[in-house]
Amino acid sequence: MKAYIDICSDLGEGYGNYKVADDQALLEVVSSANIACGFHAGDPRTMNAAVAQAVKMGVGIGAHPGFPDLVGFGRRDMELTPLEIITDTLYQIGALSAFAKAHGGSLQHVFPHGVLGNRVNYDRKYAEAFVEAIVKYDPSLIVMTDPGELANIAEQRGLKIAYSIYADRAYNVDGSLVSRSIEGAVIHEPEVVVERCLRMVLERKVTAITGKEIEVHGHTLVVHGDTAGSLELALKIKETLKNHGIGVMPLGKWL
Amino acid sequence: MKAYIDICSDLGEGYGNYKVADDQALLEVVSSANIACGFHAGDPRTMNAAVAQAVKMGVGIGAHPGFPDLVGFGRRDMELTPLEIITDTLYQIGALSAFAKAHGGSLQHVFPHGVLGNRVNYDRKYAEAFVEAIVKYDPSLIVMTDPGELANIAEQRGLKIAYSIYADRAYNVDGSLVSRSIEGAVIHEPEVVVERCLRMVLERKVTAITGKEIEVHGHTLVVHGDTAGSLELALKIKETLKNHGIGVMPLGKWL
Amino acid sequence: MKAYIDICSDLGEGYGNYKVADDQALLEVVSSANIACGFHAGDPRTMNAAVAQAVKMGVGIGAHPGFPDLVGFGRRDMELTPLEIITDTLYQIGALSAFAKAHGGSLQHVFPHGVLGNRVNYDRKYAEAFVEAIVKYDPSLIVMTDPGELANIAEQRGLKIAYSIYADRAYNVDGSLVSRSIEGAVIHEPEVVVERCLRMVLERKVTAITGKEIEVHGHTLVVHGDTAGSLELALKIKETLKNHGIGVMPLGKWL
Amino acid sequence: MKAYIDICSDLGEGYGNYKVADDQALLEVVSSANIACGFHAGDPRTMNAAVAQAVKMGVGIGAHPGFPDLVGFGRRDMELTPLEIITDTLYQIGALSAFAKAHGGSLQHVFPHGVLGNRVNYDRKYAEAFVEAIVKYDPSLIVMTDPGELANIAEQRGLKIAYSIYADRAYNVDGSLVSRSIEGAVIHEPEVVVERCLRMVLERKVTAITGKEIEVHGHTLVVHGDTAGSLELALKIKETLKNHGIGVMPLGKWL
Repeated sequence: MKAYIDICSDLGEGYGNYKVADDQALLEVVSSANIACGFHAGDPRTMNAAVAQAVKMGVGIGAHPGFPDLVGFGRRDMELTPLEIITDTLYQIGALSAFAKAHGGSLQHVFPHGVLGNRVNYDRKYAEAFVEAIVKYDPSLIVMTDPGELANIAEQRGLKIAYSIYADRAYNVDGSLVSRSIEGAVIHEPEVVVERCLRMVLERKVTAITGKEIEVHGHTLVVHGDTAGSLELALKIKETLKNHGIGVMPLGKWL
Repeated sequence: MKAYIDICSDLGEGYGNYKVADDQALLEVVSSANIACGFHAGDPRTMNAAVAQAVKMGVGIGAHPGFPDLVGFGRRDMELTPLEIITDTLYQIGALSAFAKAHGGSLQHVFPHGVLGNRVNYDRKYAEAFVEAIVKYDPSLIVMTDPGELANIAEQRGLKIAYSIYADRAYNVDGSLVSRSIEGAVIHEPEVVVERCLRMVLERKVTAITGKEIEVHGHTLVVHGDTAGSLELALKIKETLKNHGIGVMPLGKWL
Repeated sequence: MKAYIDICSDLGEGYGNYKVADDQALLEVVSSANIACGFHAGDPRTMNAAVAQAVKMGVGIGAHPGFPDLVGFGRRDMELTPLEIITDTLYQIGALSAFAKAHGGSLQHVFPHGVLGNRVNYDRKYAEAFVEAIVKYDPSLIVMTDPGELANIAEQRGLKIAYSIYADRAYNVDGSLVSRSIEGAVIHEPEVVVERCLRMVLERKVTAITGKEIEVHGHTLVVHGDTAGSLELALKIKETLKNHGIGVMPLGKWL
Repeated sequence: MKAYIDICSDLGEGYGNYKVADDQALLEVVSSANIACGFHAGDPRTMNAAVAQAVKMGVGIGAHPGFPDLVGFGRRDMELTPLEIITDTLYQIGALSAFAKAHGGSLQHVFPHGVLGNRVNYDRKYAEAFVEAIVKYDPSLIVMTDPGELANIAEQRGLKIAYSIYADRAYNVDGSLVSRSIEGAVIHEPEVVVERCLRMVLERKVTAITGKEIEVHGHTLVVHGDTAGSLELALKIKETLKNHGIGVMPLGKWL
């Protein structure tokens, strides 16, 4: 029996003259892309180029909306009203979808960025507003998230959910990620990362930072493209998964 | 035999705390709305409120994309590449269409704002890029413009075109608008404005600033909502047209 | 024996095409101006025009820095680091002071805007960072604020403090302002407003919303210029104060 | 007899999460820094860090104002009024000077960025407005530029001028730079670059792209820090100049 997994990465995070990752190269590895929509990062050219290549490569296109805070890269908390979250999310999803439409593609999923992504996991008001935007725009869009309020509310409203698992991050025993401020939060040895990925996908298990075995259920494996060696690592993970009979495919094809 | 005309106005031109016109009141008068998309004016809340009311009132929704220059309100010339015009236009159309979709409506037309609107009339490079964006996004969208390069290229590419006529503006003998810097460019007497509108629609004629009679062919009558008495004037024009058997309806219903 | 009071108002809150108050008219009434610096409101032309007129009229010039959130007008809470507050404040003070310098004037005070103004009153981290920016830039600048953390820390660091009293706002018994969400928070009858101002300045007393008499100690009386009749009211307050022997003068002349 | 030269570089061109060059390392090589002021690049933290290090290293601090176009990095032409150029320039100079003041330093020069820098060389209206801002702000500031309208007008108004020469760029026979779109515009061989720099400074001569010898008179040698090996090259140029008895010092110390 064959199992599937999606491999995704954040993309389109440049802005004008500023470049972050090699989007074109990453799009040859991942099966889904979380593309910034212009509020915390991403200008129309960056978005257009990422979407054009994603359509060409058969990569699933996801909107990656964030807070309206370019200088803070969407990583600073902001107190927003539900209406502000709904309309900012609609605006960003719509903007990205224009590029998908122009290149003959369509959106597959929505994945909240940065502190917006954190807030929707524990703040019911933010989660409800975020889901409201998706339901109003297109209830067939998949919501990519971690377990939490957003997942709960998305499920109640009938949306499909894709849980993320993280290739190079350490886990706490409750299944949450170890904060980046704690030593050991990021796993740097490529072999260890590949081995953990394989186990998380095949056995749905991972060794938490305490040494205890925990269960993880993910539909998409998040990889990075903005650090040295990250592209090669992502490719290695993908090949290892394939060699073990796992089909790496966009969420929309099998979820 | 019954004739139709569209009455349109620029809307959604506020930004956050800043308000310009009484959009909600204007939407009870016009049959089409040209809604700012966030680059020269218009934030997600302003856009959302305008679109929600437009859908409710059966008003045709138009994207009013402009240059990425909020502080200049899209009224300062910028040298942009074709790719910049295509992608900026796609981004703005997509952002607005998200609100249309969320409220159960859809876009009817696209009308370039400010200096972008001027440039596309005489600069072939800008006109081609603007048309390219529309063709790629949705070739059923109507292009609202004055005669010029944009109209020529839009026609060649098979797009529908709606020409604008202006309720309170004086015309040169070649059919162009008298520049606002020249005395008499704006007609202030309400009775004269109403009379001219009626004649432009019924007889397709108007008296140019030189006194000569000229022909005008318009599909949409542009009115304003941001000056004292403008709302009452727009209402008066609408009623007068109706009283003369002209059907005031959104472009998409009859063009 | 003669007493002095300052009358101030927020100014320069337009942005490009967007106008808020009649800055030029207000500058003929107030003795000090709190001028927006481009982050929550205020573009270089608006700032320049306000400063030019302030210098001409002998009005004390104050920087009114806010959060970097134009669409939210600085009224949405943001989690910022001390370094972000220090550097954002320095940037804004410096930008405004360039206009003062260009017109032969100089800055008199700094008054934090919106939610930044609220945060510095109760959040020690924000208050310390805000004071740090002023001390580093120019420790002779007066800090305008309400009693709270900012005032405490500014005093410890040796800065001069000017407390604000509010012409048309109701007070709680502890001397804080009644929240705008509560009925009666804003006093609308011009005669009552004038009477209260006179008493706050002459007797340092005001009737709180409960009916109890409380003490208020203010150096500057905050008036508004963006609502109907506000300009006339401000003028009336000023004349009444003068008629009672109170000298209305910029803070820098007497504090 | 000892001669002096300044070595400068554009700095502070990051924005929030976006990094461009290694500002801290560059500041150990150059004697003057052209620091972006927030309009085309540069956020308050980036500016603050660059200024703090410049003060510490004794590097001359220059404002590098540009067009208000972050997404275009100030490299897209804009039609601005004289008032817009004056006030945008004042705003940016003032913002940067706040950081200089906070760290115990002061501004040495002003150098227009990107297309603003091109426009002031041939467009009298832009040059006059730019000079007007400097004269109003502080007429002791040095204007860094190429020969052209800006230099002419700055001289007429009594400002000091520092001409730039370019380490790695080819020259036309009229002394202008070969456009980057032409092959051979940028010289890549480190030895050739160093040799040319030495000759430009010692003999005031350089071989133009046609092979002809031309004269060049420069006060500051522009080097880059954003490409591989650029830092080492800058250091090599500096050492070679020193070894030939040329004093590398900030403009303000000897011009």
